[in-house]
Amino acid sequence: MSKLAVVALGGNAILRAGQEGTIDVQEKNAYAASLNLIKLTQRGYNMVLTHGNGPQVGNILLANTAGKKQFGIPDMPLDISVAYSQGFIGYILEQQLRNVLMNEDLDRDIISIITQVLVNKDDEAFKNPTKPIGPYFTEEEAKTFAKETDNIFKEDSAGRGWRKVVASPTPLVIFNRVSIEKIAREGHIVIAVGGGGVPCYYVAENKLQGIDAVIDKDLASALLAQQIRADKFFILTDVPKVCIEFNTPQEKTIDRMNIAQAKKYLDEGQFGEGSMAPKIRAAIHFIERSGKDTIVTDTKLLGVDNGGTRITIV
Amino acid sequence: MSKLAVVALGGNAILRAGQEGTIDVQEKNAYAASLNLIKLTQRGYNMVLTHGNGPQVGNILLANTAGKKQFGIPDMPLDISVAYSQGFIGYILEQQLRNVLMNEDLDRDIISIITQVLVNKDDEAFKNPTKPIGPYFTEEEAKTFAKETDNIFKEDSAGRGWRKVVASPTPLVIFNRVSIEKIAREGHIVIAVGGGGVPCYYVAENKLQGIDAVIDKDLASALLAQQIRADKFFILTDVPKVCIEFNTPQEKTIDRMNIAQAKKYLDEGQFGEGSMAPKIRAAIHFIERSGKDTIVTDTKLLGVDNGGTRITIV
Repeated sequence: MSKLAVVALGGNAILRAGQEGTIDVQEKNAYAASLNLIKLTQRGYNMVLTHGNGPQVGNILLANTAGKKQFGIPDMPLDISVAYSQGFIGYILEQQLRNVLMNEDLDRDIISIITQVLVNKDDEAFKNPTKPIGPYFTEEEAKTFAKETDNIFKEDSAGRGWRKVVASPTPLVIFNRVSIEKIAREGHIVIAVGGGGVPCYYVAENKLQGIDAVIDKDLASALLAQQIRADKFFILTDVPKVCIEFNTPQEKTIDRMNIAQAKKYLDEGQFGEGSMAPKIRAAIHFIERSGKDTIVTDTKLLGVDNGGTRITIV
Repeated sequence: MSKLAVVALGGNAILRAGQEGTIDVQEKNAYAASLNLIKLTQRGYNMVLTHGNGPQVGNILLANTAGKKQFGIPDMPLDISVAYSQGFIGYILEQQLRNVLMNEDLDRDIISIITQVLVNKDDEAFKNPTKPIGPYFTEEEAKTFAKETDNIFKEDSAGRGWRKVVASPTPLVIFNRVSIEKIAREGHIVIAVGGGGVPCYYVAENKLQGIDAVIDKDLASALLAQQIRADKFFILTDVPKVCIEFNTPQEKTIDRMNIAQAKKYLDEGQFGEGSMAPKIRAAIHFIERSGKDTIVTDTKLLGVDNGGTRITIV
């Protein structure tokens, strides 16, 4: 039986900071990523691919804001915007993976699945939303919107204006996990849990509803890896290996560490909160529950057996 | 073995003309449709659900237009907008179906799949695009845009302004058809081919690319039904049965007709071009290739064995 991998692709793999977000650019990036992703299937892995959506959902929220103002289009809540982005990124990733597979004459189907993820309304995160999303507003606009809706706005620490903030609750259940596992184990590539998944909760015993929140995509991917009993979890980033003492003369790359070491480095603040720390936490989540390894690396190193930083249980 | 049905839901099942397009309204409509759709599973059918996206993609195009103007967001071509709408509608339909299934204590998974559909760049439809989409512009704006891009604009026959027109090419292959059939035959509900599918074509031998076009969703659904060897094809609309001599004193509802009669009525112009005619053509497409029946009816009649108009091969 083939091994099963969950591979978490960063949102910046499709659109890097500073790049113009045209479709042409995003397709080219998706094609470049696909060339590397496919190496994992050539190493004998079945694969579920997850992805971020930061730059894309940012543009979707901007467009919705402008559409409301110019044309009176009804508000699209965040769950819908995440679903938009899953459709968008799922489509272009699937298409570019398909192009690579055709060139390599590999016969696998690629299936992009819209994924909901269950969260708990009582999650502590809802008491103090901290994740900024969407466009910047003036203080006056923000206060007006806050009064008109139940949205919360906070001032950006860099003084760029006021932004809506939402909670980032803990993901609990990945919907479609049984089907995702089954399709992937049959040898097809599944694209799922885009942007961390569409967050929803039980508003009543038999009633699911979307909620204005953002789920950390690495953590949702770790949960998926656990729930589908993946053999390995790959977290892709834009550095080849995890570093400690980053950007100091003592900077040191890590080839391998166990979760005790990883936790110690986390406590020491070795990893950036907006970048490496959530990835290491996601790795620990998966490793503690599965006993299996997590690899943190650059997409370019997927073809290499010992590429990246290996995080292990012992 | 259970029978397999493809069920084509109209875009207006989720958002009716004249309704305000808030998410709350669209969710309620999706829930109401789900209550009826589930009756088909209770009659022993496995089910692939397809859906339109007219009202939703209209708003997406408006928002993108406004976002470009106000925030300089890059253009989102039509294939991306269709993918957005598949994410959106796939999500809310899946969620509301799930709510209905939980209430009925039925244990089926529901899987929303982003679907690409292959078309041919040499399709005659590309020589004379006729399908209007997106916002209305003034003649001056339209002529400027036409010069800046390779878009084609035409004046609306009711004088509401100028709109972009795109081709509506013939769908040739439904991507993921093998997986769609397999998942559905295992007893799960698959949502696919939303808005007729994301149109794409081979720009080179091993290179797929999206294209600015709209595929008729009933025809794409008929093709899917054929390609996954469905036992029955349901085309849902807002009338219980097909009529001839519609809106005249001779109006007559049809309980059953064969494809020879259906073709004769089509030739006579008995069916409206923007409404019933494409559904009858889609029915004929499926019946001629499969020998199986198509039912055209209102969603409300899905629970009834002889509800709707049955179209047969002989």
